[in-house]
Amino acid sequence: MRTPFSPEGPHDTAALQAKAAKHLWPHFTSRKVLNDGIPVITRGEGHHLYDAAGKRYIDGLAGLFVVNAGHGRQRIVDAAARQMKQLDFMPIWSYAHPAAVELAERLASYAPADLNRVFFSTGGGEAVETAFKLAKHYWKLRGKPMKHKVISRAVAYHGTPQGALAITGIPAMKQFYEPLTPGGHRVPNTNFYRAAEAGAPTDDLEAFGRWAADRIEEAILFEGADTVAAVFLEPVQNSGGCFPPPPGYFQRVREICDRHDVLLVSDEVICAFGRVGDFFACNALGYVPDIITCAKGITSGYVPLGATVVSEKVYEPFNSPENTFYHGYTFAAHPAAAAAALENLDIFEEEDLNGRVRENSPLFRAELEKLLDLDIVGDVRGEGYFFGIELVKDKATRETFDAAESDRLLRDFLSPALWDAGLYCRADDRGDPVIQLAPPLTIGPAEFAEIGGILRSVLKDASTKI
Amino acid sequence: MRTPFSPEGPHDTAALQAKAAKHLWPHFTSRKVLNDGIPVITRGEGHHLYDAAGKRYIDGLAGLFVVNAGHGRQRIVDAAARQMKQLDFMPIWSYAHPAAVELAERLASYAPADLNRVFFSTGGGEAVETAFKLAKHYWKLRGKPMKHKVISRAVAYHGTPQGALAITGIPAMKQFYEPLTPGGHRVPNTNFYRAAEAGAPTDDLEAFGRWAADRIEEAILFEGADTVAAVFLEPVQNSGGCFPPPPGYFQRVREICDRHDVLLVSDEVICAFGRVGDFFACNALGYVPDIITCAKGITSGYVPLGATVVSEKVYEPFNSPENTFYHGYTFAAHPAAAAAALENLDIFEEEDLNGRVRENSPLFRAELEKLLDLDIVGDVRGEGYFFGIELVKDKATRETFDAAESDRLLRDFLSPALWDAGLYCRADDRGDPVIQLAPPLTIGPAEFAEIGGILRSVLKDASTKI
Repeated sequence: MRTPFSPEGPHDTAALQAKAAKHLWPHFTSRKVLNDGIPVITRGEGHHLYDAAGKRYIDGLAGLFVVNAGHGRQRIVDAAARQMKQLDFMPIWSYAHPAAVELAERLASYAPADLNRVFFSTGGGEAVETAFKLAKHYWKLRGKPMKHKVISRAVAYHGTPQGALAITGIPAMKQFYEPLTPGGHRVPNTNFYRAAEAGAPTDDLEAFGRWAADRIEEAILFEGADTVAAVFLEPVQNSGGCFPPPPGYFQRVREICDRHDVLLVSDEVICAFGRVGDFFACNALGYVPDIITCAKGITSGYVPLGATVVSEKVYEPFNSPENTFYHGYTFAAHPAAAAAALENLDIFEEEDLNGRVRENSPLFRAELEKLLDLDIVGDVRGEGYFFGIELVKDKATRETFDAAESDRLLRDFLSPALWDAGLYCRADDRGDPVIQLAPPLTIGPAEFAEIGGILRSVLKDASTKI
Repeated sequence: MRTPFSPEGPHDTAALQAKAAKHLWPHFTSRKVLNDGIPVITRGEGHHLYDAAGKRYIDGLAGLFVVNAGHGRQRIVDAAARQMKQLDFMPIWSYAHPAAVELAERLASYAPADLNRVFFSTGGGEAVETAFKLAKHYWKLRGKPMKHKVISRAVAYHGTPQGALAITGIPAMKQFYEPLTPGGHRVPNTNFYRAAEAGAPTDDLEAFGRWAADRIEEAILFEGADTVAAVFLEPVQNSGGCFPPPPGYFQRVREICDRHDVLLVSDEVICAFGRVGDFFACNALGYVPDIITCAKGITSGYVPLGATVVSEKVYEPFNSPENTFYHGYTFAAHPAAAAAALENLDIFEEEDLNGRVRENSPLFRAELEKLLDLDIVGDVRGEGYFFGIELVKDKATRETFDAAESDRLLRDFLSPALWDAGLYCRADDRGDPVIQLAPPLTIGPAEFAEIGGILRSVLKDASTKI
């Protein structure tokens, strides 16, 4: 009989790294990381991660925009375990179980307007696939069968299955997998810091927002409204480094979508569940989409889950035995995931995590804006507990780094230096180089200062390391 | 403060059904099911499911080909809960955690030949997406960038994200979502019972197998080998009702793939982890693919997980910092899922579930073959603990039911009648009408007889209900 695996250890890091180098294919990861010895995380507690040596790291990314209620929540563990013991697994393919039903009702209660119908998945990419397929099916049933294209924004990430990937706006992440699902078209994002390069208004944020929204209408007209099914937008775009919407942007997009019979999908895989201070970010930002996609923070990551929340308008043709949405995922609405989500959302309500984010966000922003005195820090932007710090070669001209410089800066210097200094966060160059922060929503001013201090200590020398 | 959700109940079925009708969008489910009151399952134990009234059902489908070690395994619950308490979530994006590493090594140890590299996902559809994208990327790096098409079999199901869906061979499940990822091409499956309709050899199973394998080569030549990346095949095809491979089929397919530089993907989302008596079905059936996809039974469903297991040949170009596979899923290799999988696989080893399946499968088959005396039962086929019973209108001519008859037979009569009689299984018409059985691997002759008895009691009247 084998020795059972022990989550509590002891863990031999060198042996695990050697095994990983032989067998584990980590995601979006260069072979260099495996060759150098992949970092092994063994424990989480509150807003901290730990390695086998007991070294502590601030979890500045909530895992991956996921652990919104923080690590080590015994009551979520207990809720998942109780559900697993009672009913470990039952698919929601023509059947239901209580936790899935209760969670569907709860999500509908948080969603705006009449977004009342919940189609579960196992994660964000699947939630986006669901929305994309649903948009195509909807228009075919509405007598507009040519509407199948989707519009999304440059540098935006919407997932990796080949429908979601067609919506993703990062060419380097797509080129090896072409041809993808047809119909993906890109428009500019709301990167106001780079407005000049785009030939957009630079001195008036609202005018910039109108310009960016109008690019969506332009794309609809370029393609022909009769061929466009949906626009997919994140409330605050993650990839590229946290682009909030200018005031009025989403309201104008909503008008454009209505004018051309195009569905508006709010991809809230990152932004929902408190990240910007509300259960759903569209509520915080004041717009009503036709479909919301979400995942990650829905369980704070304790068990995989995603969901696509749909308006009555979009549900209407399926509210009849005549039309069935031929779509599903085996593990969607997993009983343990649904039970974990309900407990997680109870924590949100009891501890008012959304209110905490709204209250503390300006303090977090102010702490990070202090870094603007460093030459390498070009911009600090974001919403809620979700910020990006753009790094520049020349602050006056906003000149960015070339690919080789960016690689040396982010991969060779910043990622290991921040890690060594005890901060897990993201140094990313899917757009211009940025550091991204999205910590658990439980932290406050003391931790903002600690994060700010670590960033300053590392960034002050960064220019010399390129 | 809200009343916390209680998995143990009490559950008010009528209230849950009413809420579900308003908010839950169940998968692959007609609105009729919600209108009639969706069945609500509240508990699982061993090979049984229970509803809120305490009524017991034999789980003849292991959830959905998932709960291979059976329901209510306290040690899997404990393993998942211990891991969640220790480390609830950490992505394997440039980082690792012990359970993911140990599980990768374990899966590689079960896989044939040098299939040593494990790319995790959250479920089967994502595992198939991974294999599809990897095949395209591999050939681009190998200097054959035009190889992007995939060949799969008629009526086969490979998942619902739009890359996987392009591989799926069920037109009715795809038509509303076209255009899908380009490059999916279909060949005949190994339905020997319908060989005559296909113009294939009917009197010699091996000759039929050669014919079916050669259709794959024909498709490669039709499309041009320089454009074909991979062939995706299930070891035993599920959809259509359990089509085992004829003797020699996979060996001939392997030769064809090698001849034309085409990767062979063994889609074992259903067949791995004991369903046909081995950890990986290709071992049981004696062939070595380039890639294996798996999910479902890997954790027996206690936590969502999937994996794509890759040969050294396919990994080779990625075994260098120069080439990175730009792919990933947030929740893949979730710590609790990996810990649950390790415990589940320990159970497999300690209880020799694979040996149990190999030993008992002939008895299960013999029990089901007794049903062949009924006029409506045309064929019984399958492998391991995985059988399909094809229903026919005329046994002598093998005439099948038309769509309306099939709908009345399966949806209006058989599904509810089997459910009322205490058997949860699948009555399916994605191909010709079949009843499918894939129970937990823990059952034996007594349960085979019980299942056979229920099937007989329901099927004997079925012809009169159409």
